[in-house]
Amino acid sequence: MNRPILLLLLLCLRTGLLSAQAPDLYPAHWWSGMTMNRVQLLVHDKGRDLSGLQPSVAHPGVRVLKIHRFSNPRYLALDLAIAPGARPGHVPITLRGAGKTPVQLQWMLKERRPGRGTRFAQGITPSDFVYLAIADRFANGDPSNDRVPGLREQTLNRDSMYHRHGGDLQGISKNLGYLESLGVTALWLLPVLENDRPARTEHGYAITNHFRVDPRLGGDAAYRELSDALHARGMKLVMDAVYNHTGLQHHLELDPPDSTWMHRWPRYTQTTYREQTLFDPYAAPSDTKRMSDGWFDDGMPDINHHNPHMAAYLIQSMIWQIEEFGVDAVRIDTYTYSDLDFSNRCNAAILAEYPRIHLFGETRVFGSANQAYFNRNVFTTKYKSNLPGSVDFQLLYFGIRPALTQATGWMEGVNSLYNTLANDFLNQDATRNVLLLDNHDEPRFLSVVGEDWEKLKIGYTWLLTCRGIPQAYYGSEIGMRGVAHPDGLVRADMPGGWPGDAVNAFTGAGLGQKEKEVLDHVRKLGTYRKTSSALQTGRLMQYVPVGNVYAYFRYDQRQTVMCILNAGATAAAVPFSRFPERTAGFTQARDVLSGSTYATSGTLTVPPMGMLVLELK
Amino acid sequence: MNRPILLLLLLCLRTGLLSAQAPDLYPAHWWSGMTMNRVQLLVHDKGRDLSGLQPSVAHPGVRVLKIHRFSNPRYLALDLAIAPGARPGHVPITLRGAGKTPVQLQWMLKERRPGRGTRFAQGITPSDFVYLAIADRFANGDPSNDRVPGLREQTLNRDSMYHRHGGDLQGISKNLGYLESLGVTALWLLPVLENDRPARTEHGYAITNHFRVDPRLGGDAAYRELSDALHARGMKLVMDAVYNHTGLQHHLELDPPDSTWMHRWPRYTQTTYREQTLFDPYAAPSDTKRMSDGWFDDGMPDINHHNPHMAAYLIQSMIWQIEEFGVDAVRIDTYTYSDLDFSNRCNAAILAEYPRIHLFGETRVFGSANQAYFNRNVFTTKYKSNLPGSVDFQLLYFGIRPALTQATGWMEGVNSLYNTLANDFLNQDATRNVLLLDNHDEPRFLSVVGEDWEKLKIGYTWLLTCRGIPQAYYGSEIGMRGVAHPDGLVRADMPGGWPGDAVNAFTGAGLGQKEKEVLDHVRKLGTYRKTSSALQTGRLMQYVPVGNVYAYFRYDQRQTVMCILNAGATAAAVPFSRFPERTAGFTQARDVLSGSTYATSGTLTVPPMGMLVLELK
Repeated sequence: MNRPILLLLLLCLRTGLLSAQAPDLYPAHWWSGMTMNRVQLLVHDKGRDLSGLQPSVAHPGVRVLKIHRFSNPRYLALDLAIAPGARPGHVPITLRGAGKTPVQLQWMLKERRPGRGTRFAQGITPSDFVYLAIADRFANGDPSNDRVPGLREQTLNRDSMYHRHGGDLQGISKNLGYLESLGVTALWLLPVLENDRPARTEHGYAITNHFRVDPRLGGDAAYRELSDALHARGMKLVMDAVYNHTGLQHHLELDPPDSTWMHRWPRYTQTTYREQTLFDPYAAPSDTKRMSDGWFDDGMPDINHHNPHMAAYLIQSMIWQIEEFGVDAVRIDTYTYSDLDFSNRCNAAILAEYPRIHLFGETRVFGSANQAYFNRNVFTTKYKSNLPGSVDFQLLYFGIRPALTQATGWMEGVNSLYNTLANDFLNQDATRNVLLLDNHDEPRFLSVVGEDWEKLKIGYTWLLTCRGIPQAYYGSEIGMRGVAHPDGLVRADMPGGWPGDAVNAFTGAGLGQKEKEVLDHVRKLGTYRKTSSALQTGRLMQYVPVGNVYAYFRYDQRQTVMCILNAGATAAAVPFSRFPERTAGFTQARDVLSGSTYATSGTLTVPPMGMLVLELK
Repeated sequence: MNRPILLLLLLCLRTGLLSAQAPDLYPAHWWSGMTMNRVQLLVHDKGRDLSGLQPSVAHPGVRVLKIHRFSNPRYLALDLAIAPGARPGHVPITLRGAGKTPVQLQWMLKERRPGRGTRFAQGITPSDFVYLAIADRFANGDPSNDRVPGLREQTLNRDSMYHRHGGDLQGISKNLGYLESLGVTALWLLPVLENDRPARTEHGYAITNHFRVDPRLGGDAAYRELSDALHARGMKLVMDAVYNHTGLQHHLELDPPDSTWMHRWPRYTQTTYREQTLFDPYAAPSDTKRMSDGWFDDGMPDINHHNPHMAAYLIQSMIWQIEEFGVDAVRIDTYTYSDLDFSNRCNAAILAEYPRIHLFGETRVFGSANQAYFNRNVFTTKYKSNLPGSVDFQLLYFGIRPALTQATGWMEGVNSLYNTLANDFLNQDATRNVLLLDNHDEPRFLSVVGEDWEKLKIGYTWLLTCRGIPQAYYGSEIGMRGVAHPDGLVRADMPGGWPGDAVNAFTGAGLGQKEKEVLDHVRKLGTYRKTSSALQTGRLMQYVPVGNVYAYFRYDQRQTVMCILNAGATAAAVPFSRFPERTAGFTQARDVLSGSTYATSGTLTVPPMGMLVLELK
């Protein structure tokens, strides 16, 4: 064989093109020099019985510690030990058995991605501003991948909220300048991994391959390019991880190693969605089991984290994704539904590998204590979560929403916001929580506030000045509307992401006056935030609301920013002296948005349903 | 002098009758053999300058350790050490100074009340059933004390909700049989100490003398008699203690030792009533100060617990009342408003003296975490409360009230009750909390539930079967109505407590059919409870509500009681098998109220807006 042909053949072998029966390997590859240097490699050969085969590894520094076999003979798992100095490269593993054709496994150790903790896995902090988007709905950067032959779903119909719309990672990469102009520093996308199911693939939570980015979004390469483009701009990438479930079409469900990898019930059994059963001292065990082991959705098998192989598979997949794509932070979906001990182990493994990374959970519950139970808290309960932060649904449901939509009462309106923040004492560090006005499961904020554009602006003002990590949802900055039932209504296309869109959020073309005003408002505050030490890393002090007026301060040694909301129907006159701790020593207050200045010796007039952000001088 | 005249003279001297200037002493007396054997005796002589006087004690085992003087020379304080074996009897203390008439102090050491922890200071537990009454409003046992000459208020007018009505402790003592017939085992009265103010004395919280029972209620003797009568019946006495404030006409306010015994403000400053300022990580110190140091009411000076003399005075007064009157448990008023470190010290002193006693606070806040902060909880916060229990306002506001008045929603109606109980994990022992349907500050439960008598019965069913210590409010068991604004409306007279009352709750005369039914219902369940180990000391298990149906079980090795509430408008069919943990092994369920029996192999029909209590066999 001449050399080029030999090389081609080797390449084909490596990629499995010549061998239809080349087993699938999970994780697809690994890296030398990882903290996690023991890997359980799951081998799956759809067409071959692997029983009786014994592995041998021909790579210095890689040893097989143990072989696990399953009732399904098409699987086996190898515990591999990777020596710290193991050389990156192909790791030939051969499975041999008497009288059987040897099976060659195409595995490799890669060189680690450089810059752990500085160029990726940096974590996100309150200095960041996160933007959440859905790849299929943001911008179509490559029409050639809108439909991909071989995948189960072949829809492409922007008129249907549940069909594919053609958006992709390339579309996002092309519009990073827009995000940056808003002051955004981090991008969180709904899961981008393969969702090879017949319908409802737009959200990405029914993962069918943990080691492959959905080709309709541009595949692995486009995700890597997006990651690089973000990092080149000093921005960060937030991954959406799913501990709790997978897609029905996942190989572990279509051809399971045995029956214990997913939770099985005599008949379909949905979770109760009642997180209370996890901490209620009076919970019935049958209720607790149904909460954790019941399925979130009939299209998404509920993972059995008690199966150690499944657990290893999942933990490895998380680390694989972070390392492979250069992820900076992880948002963990449906956090309350997974086995909590598994979640702690998975979090710990990620944090051991990436000490600076940030992990925050979707703890969509109703109650500050309920939420705090699932992240690092001050409880001496038997179960202790190690999750650094939560998506702060409490400050949405019982915070900014009632503040802007509910008449002020002892615990209502601004007092609900005040009280919910006071409950931060339940958390070890509530500044690691992620603030939101809306997301892919919640009604758009403009719709929540009765299409009152001023309230939408106030919402963003609060989002960008309160404690924690602010997260905006794509399109709400131009006043996209939508209620969350059904959820497709809050997942509409970003205007301008498709050729021929009449409105273009990215250029501003076709935006109305109100839309432009909100967009400008977010830009102004998002940009101000980027150089404001008080907003990025300063402390928070809040004052007991008086009437409809609620004031809080962000401050540090260098800067004091006063934020004051009047949720009443008439203007409020508020002497600066009502806030002695934070206004003492200052003489002037400059309105960050209008530029107006006030003497702090006097009285401030806050317009009805208005909010001011003032830098004290 | 002949012997009788001498004795009379001695008696008069002892009681101060002959000496108009005989100084007042606080505590009025003490006991030998107390754990607290160092006492700070505050000496107050309204008409004499005590400066320059030096004490000498002529009683073996009692020594003066230190003398404290104040800017007001009419006061001094003596730190007394009482030896463990000091003999009970008069403790002559003489104050002498050069060129001054010696001043004789009439103090004594008494023998301790026998039966600490068994015959008094027994504590209350979930085995008890507490009845709350207001002495002025329950029954007039002695018309001769209705008006007492010399006291500032001289009203007597049952037509006015804020005038005195003439009820007294004798009236309560006469009706203990009625309470006992309800299954009541403990009596809590609003404070009975002297409230010598011009108006609004009916509630008792503006105490003007910590060492004297209000003479209009029958004075010290009647309170001691009530205590004895309760104990003779195996019942218990709960005292209402006020750490936070006193009455404007208290000697410490009328003629204060110095200006630091109460919180002083440049002008009247009310508390914010915002307990959040005590745990909010973002609280402004000025807000926190105003919460704790602001006055609860302009007629009730706010005690400065940082003054060590004031603190000692108050702590001693608490122990004095318990020992003097044979108190079994202490409800602590306005708990969130006092200095929390003082409260811990005061609680600790009481618990050191009476290890079996129960202390529970009025933590009238809105939020399970807010409430838990003020009692023993699972928080690792800097401030840790040592208070054993709280009045459980959360299970009123977010529990039984919404369960019976709010349409069922994800977190509404029965689900609010379910969730609030689940939040018990925040407490070290929520069974020490006191459950209520109403009290002297809350609307009567019948009014809360829109005068639906069936719901009132359900309320009592819940009260007497849920976890914790049930507390009923006088008169609600016969369907008294009333809203809490103004509060006088929920403090009406108990029918039958006054001669000539057309209706008599105690005899049943004049009660309507509905009133009788509720009364019978409370009697039946209150009596059942007395012999039900499951309800008294059993564990609780609650199930996730399904639709409008909420079920919980109380159980132990001997007994299982199933409680099931259908808050919907139509009957609910519920298979017993929905509760596998608690119905397995049983074959029959007997309705405790109706006597009907059901086979647990089948389905139970719960009537619309109905609740069943079933004992499983």
